[in-house]
Amino acid sequence: MMNRLMEEVKKKEAPIVVGLDPNLSFIPSKIMNNAIAEYGETPDAAAEAVSEFNRALIDAVADLVPAVKPQIAMYEQFGIPGLLAFQNTIVYAKEKGLIVIGDIKRGDIGSTSEAYARAHLGKIMIGNAAFSAFDEDIVTVNPYLGSDGVLPFVKIAKEEKKGIFVLVKTSNPSSGEFQDREIDGRPLYMYVADKVKEWGEGEPYSNVGAVVGATYPEEGKRIRECLPNTVFLIPGYGAQGGKGKDLKEYFDKDGLGVIVNSSRGIIAAYKQEAYASYGEDGFADAARAAVLAMKEDLKEALS
Amino acid sequence: MMNRLMEEVKKKEAPIVVGLDPNLSFIPSKIMNNAIAEYGETPDAAAEAVSEFNRALIDAVADLVPAVKPQIAMYEQFGIPGLLAFQNTIVYAKEKGLIVIGDIKRGDIGSTSEAYARAHLGKIMIGNAAFSAFDEDIVTVNPYLGSDGVLPFVKIAKEEKKGIFVLVKTSNPSSGEFQDREIDGRPLYMYVADKVKEWGEGEPYSNVGAVVGATYPEEGKRIRECLPNTVFLIPGYGAQGGKGKDLKEYFDKDGLGVIVNSSRGIIAAYKQEAYASYGEDGFADAARAAVLAMKEDLKEALS
Repeated sequence: MMNRLMEEVKKKEAPIVVGLDPNLSFIPSKIMNNAIAEYGETPDAAAEAVSEFNRALIDAVADLVPAVKPQIAMYEQFGIPGLLAFQNTIVYAKEKGLIVIGDIKRGDIGSTSEAYARAHLGKIMIGNAAFSAFDEDIVTVNPYLGSDGVLPFVKIAKEEKKGIFVLVKTSNPSSGEFQDREIDGRPLYMYVADKVKEWGEGEPYSNVGAVVGATYPEEGKRIRECLPNTVFLIPGYGAQGGKGKDLKEYFDKDGLGVIVNSSRGIIAAYKQEAYASYGEDGFADAARAAVLAMKEDLKEALS
Repeated sequence: MMNRLMEEVKKKEAPIVVGLDPNLSFIPSKIMNNAIAEYGETPDAAAEAVSEFNRALIDAVADLVPAVKPQIAMYEQFGIPGLLAFQNTIVYAKEKGLIVIGDIKRGDIGSTSEAYARAHLGKIMIGNAAFSAFDEDIVTVNPYLGSDGVLPFVKIAKEEKKGIFVLVKTSNPSSGEFQDREIDGRPLYMYVADKVKEWGEGEPYSNVGAVVGATYPEEGKRIRECLPNTVFLIPGYGAQGGKGKDLKEYFDKDGLGVIVNSSRGIIAAYKQEAYASYGEDGFADAARAAVLAMKEDLKEALS
């Protein structure tokens, strides 16, 4: 799946994933009001609004980008209806030819990680029938529990020809609190990077990728040196402060190997001054324009 | 909530939480077959079987223990119907007076962690209506992203008078891979323990607890020295190898401050030789007997 992801990046000339993190404040009032008119002030209304918002966004960007990344927390907060919207969004995005990266950051001990991996990448047997719950193409995984927490994801990703991204160096301000701690002169995130190398396999790209925040370019460079054929999922671009030119050293020798996420910067572009002329009703066109601008910005990183 | 948890531990003389991790292989065939007869070989059948199994277990142990701990992965693997069973299990356990610890091990960057915290401990506003999705009393949180990933949980736990358990030293074989790495002579888990102290507040017990595996007694002792008024959620007892006598040093000076989890050892007790006489149909009575035996075993730790 990482190889397919990189082929799509190449074909579309866009190492971009659109983060579908539908905070209710991003959803145009017309969509929200219609949903409330139909379902009342309920989680069903929120879920309906989120689904409609996502469908319009997916339609607007599907020919431009290889992938979308729904952040499950933003759906889980609406309970069961929210998780149905998560599921429907995955189905819809796949129908439009997009690769779906489930940003789930799960991780637990062996048998429990296996249950998560089955839920999101694999299948579960019920009697003699196999059933897929959420069926993302790639998911994010938290490494704090060590190999026996991650390997069940690796195993099922391999069986299903899918992939995972392991959190190595995250984009948030306090990511360094534990991740940067120096152990014999090397930060913790480099030990995680070593394991990402060990856990993965596949050519030209490993099926185990790494999450490396756009907000830490020095660290990004260092991790790339250690992981030449690993795909980086890069959060922190745009709203969190990362810019295309900061990402120069994240790309691999072929000018590939990365997929940069933008959520708010694309899906709520219509709220920015630069795209205000689209208005609320033009949110999907504004998102499309923001993707095109991001494409240009990322080209600079390689020029 | 941590204070209430400790009061219940004292009242019931049982620092025990029953892990509701309903692997399908634990569910008696009669329950599973009935569910399949009604729903076919579908996730709905799995969810119905899980719900019925849990209700019987809760009925059998509610007067003996203060809390149950459903592991969400075991429900998430069945998709939406599974998550409905998770939700129903929480409601049922609370009706029976039990405290519910959601073993969710979530953790993300700020706004995303807040969404998780709202989903599991708090409320979300939809229009002018407030809505609670899963509404556990306490949840487990992964610290790899640092303070800004954990503090949203702390904030919402405080608002809702609930609590969290942060993963400090987990019970699995490879937990040391990252958690034991030495930084200036102290392992990483001790830096996490420092933060647990800093993040929490409350008397006599902090609202931020720590997950400390039963399988690492030396580490447990060291963490207790650092965190005298923190409640430890202790996995790894029983099936993973931890024994009551290993836990002596985990208790606080009042012989409290811990809640020891057993999942398989209780809910699938009927599969063990010691409880085989209960048979499959007697799974709930076997679970009750296993709780009573665990109570005795833990008393030894304090004698």
